[in-house]
Amino acid sequence: MAPRKHKKPDWIVEKERAKRGDAAETIWLFGLHAVRDALQNPKREKLRLMVTKNAADRLGEAIAQSGIEPEVVDPRHFNPPLEAQSVHQGAVLEVRPLEWGSVSELCAPKDEAPLLVLLDRVSDPHNVGAILRSAEVFGARAVIAPHRHSAPETGALAKTASGALERQPYMRVPNLAKSMNALREMGYFIIGLDGEADMTLTQAVADLPNVPLALALGSEGPGLRELTKKTCHRIAKIPFAGDFGSLNVSNAAAVSLFAASSWKQAF
Amino acid sequence: MAPRKHKKPDWIVEKERAKRGDAAETIWLFGLHAVRDALQNPKREKLRLMVTKNAADRLGEAIAQSGIEPEVVDPRHFNPPLEAQSVHQGAVLEVRPLEWGSVSELCAPKDEAPLLVLLDRVSDPHNVGAILRSAEVFGARAVIAPHRHSAPETGALAKTASGALERQPYMRVPNLAKSMNALREMGYFIIGLDGEADMTLTQAVADLPNVPLALALGSEGPGLRELTKKTCHRIAKIPFAGDFGSLNVSNAAAVSLFAASSWKQAF
Repeated sequence: MAPRKHKKPDWIVEKERAKRGDAAETIWLFGLHAVRDALQNPKREKLRLMVTKNAADRLGEAIAQSGIEPEVVDPRHFNPPLEAQSVHQGAVLEVRPLEWGSVSELCAPKDEAPLLVLLDRVSDPHNVGAILRSAEVFGARAVIAPHRHSAPETGALAKTASGALERQPYMRVPNLAKSMNALREMGYFIIGLDGEADMTLTQAVADLPNVPLALALGSEGPGLRELTKKTCHRIAKIPFAGDFGSLNVSNAAAVSLFAASSWKQAF
Repeated sequence: MAPRKHKKPDWIVEKERAKRGDAAETIWLFGLHAVRDALQNPKREKLRLMVTKNAADRLGEAIAQSGIEPEVVDPRHFNPPLEAQSVHQGAVLEVRPLEWGSVSELCAPKDEAPLLVLLDRVSDPHNVGAILRSAEVFGARAVIAPHRHSAPETGALAKTASGALERQPYMRVPNLAKSMNALREMGYFIIGLDGEADMTLTQAVADLPNVPLALALGSEGPGLRELTKKTCHRIAKIPFAGDFGSLNVSNAAAVSLFAASSWKQAF
């Protein structure tokens, strides 16, 4: 454990982070890219836009489209309510979290076999942001995570998601195992990723018909919790992984999504 | 462009970062994981180890193995020469960069068909760190990048690489296109990744025998430079990529390495 002076234990950091996310009924998005994407998203409830003159010029079209009245602030007095080191580029937008409805509605298979990502306590906003990008690229229907110990929807997450947060459903649920059971009842086949597994992901999907599929990934280090593992149909590892090293969780998610997409394509 | 007050232009940030890396003949590694891995690496020249009592206890075995005499510092006076916000966990180690020899030596195909990653100006240390992890996992022989505008070997990079920096060759070369031409002469087939490509990576490798392969990736946004593109044999995109969104560069690298590994396996 690190000396407290230098670093709080991870579980405290996570708890505080989750609390901040829960308590905040609004989110401050920042950075030209994230702010533009949110302005252009009709589903996003926008509350307050603070911009420098320069940023207002660059966002002109998106601002006009959104209908919001910007507060243009002198760069010398631009002190938005953000953590230090947030690269806001002179643009911050206060918004409400997106409403994606319920898991049962959004994830209902209907006429196709959807692909989902389940994240078991992935708390780093940069990893979750990158995973949202990959989920969008590989056509996942949703990314589902438990409410506690998961990165909340924040400006930092939105920035790393590079626009994907506006389009890719990121749903936080009260109890992941419960939601997994609901998904099983809806016909989903759930594969948990674990480096210690006996079979590879390629093997795990090889004998499956084109069914709705959910890929469960845990955080680096602890991995999937026991209950999460037990609620999966199969546990598999990423193929070709050597004896040394391990993938960053967002890279593991991208590779798994790609492997699952290849498999779906084959049917 | 962001107002200067808030953010320096990217090219200046990169230039300064590269300069710092070049000027520093030594690197300060930090964090228990990175410091332990470096202590246990016999090829790593270690100069100075500063630890708190707590960290010294936790690193006991690795310290004994390395033979270095630690300077045990009171946590209240522990002020290592690091950037603020570096989570050092009470352990910092000054080292020299690793020597991997020349590209022609390290990448000589010999009896197998090696896999390489070429990074064209990927300057973010977190992305390069994650790419080193993926390169190690998928058995790449080396990651090669131009000296300028690439993330130098730093403590931040080592921390994100989570040990892979000690084992996975990361070579910075004076001129990437020149090195690519040398690799071509050594028998490498070079595939550049570009979202605008007509063929997919799977298609690009389908008709290739088991040859030495190099995958070239550019930084997000600008992508591969024109000369880099021209020096590739083929340009390909990652399959299944939707109309919206794009992968983070480290995720693109992981997926490409996985796809190339699958292909190599097939021969």
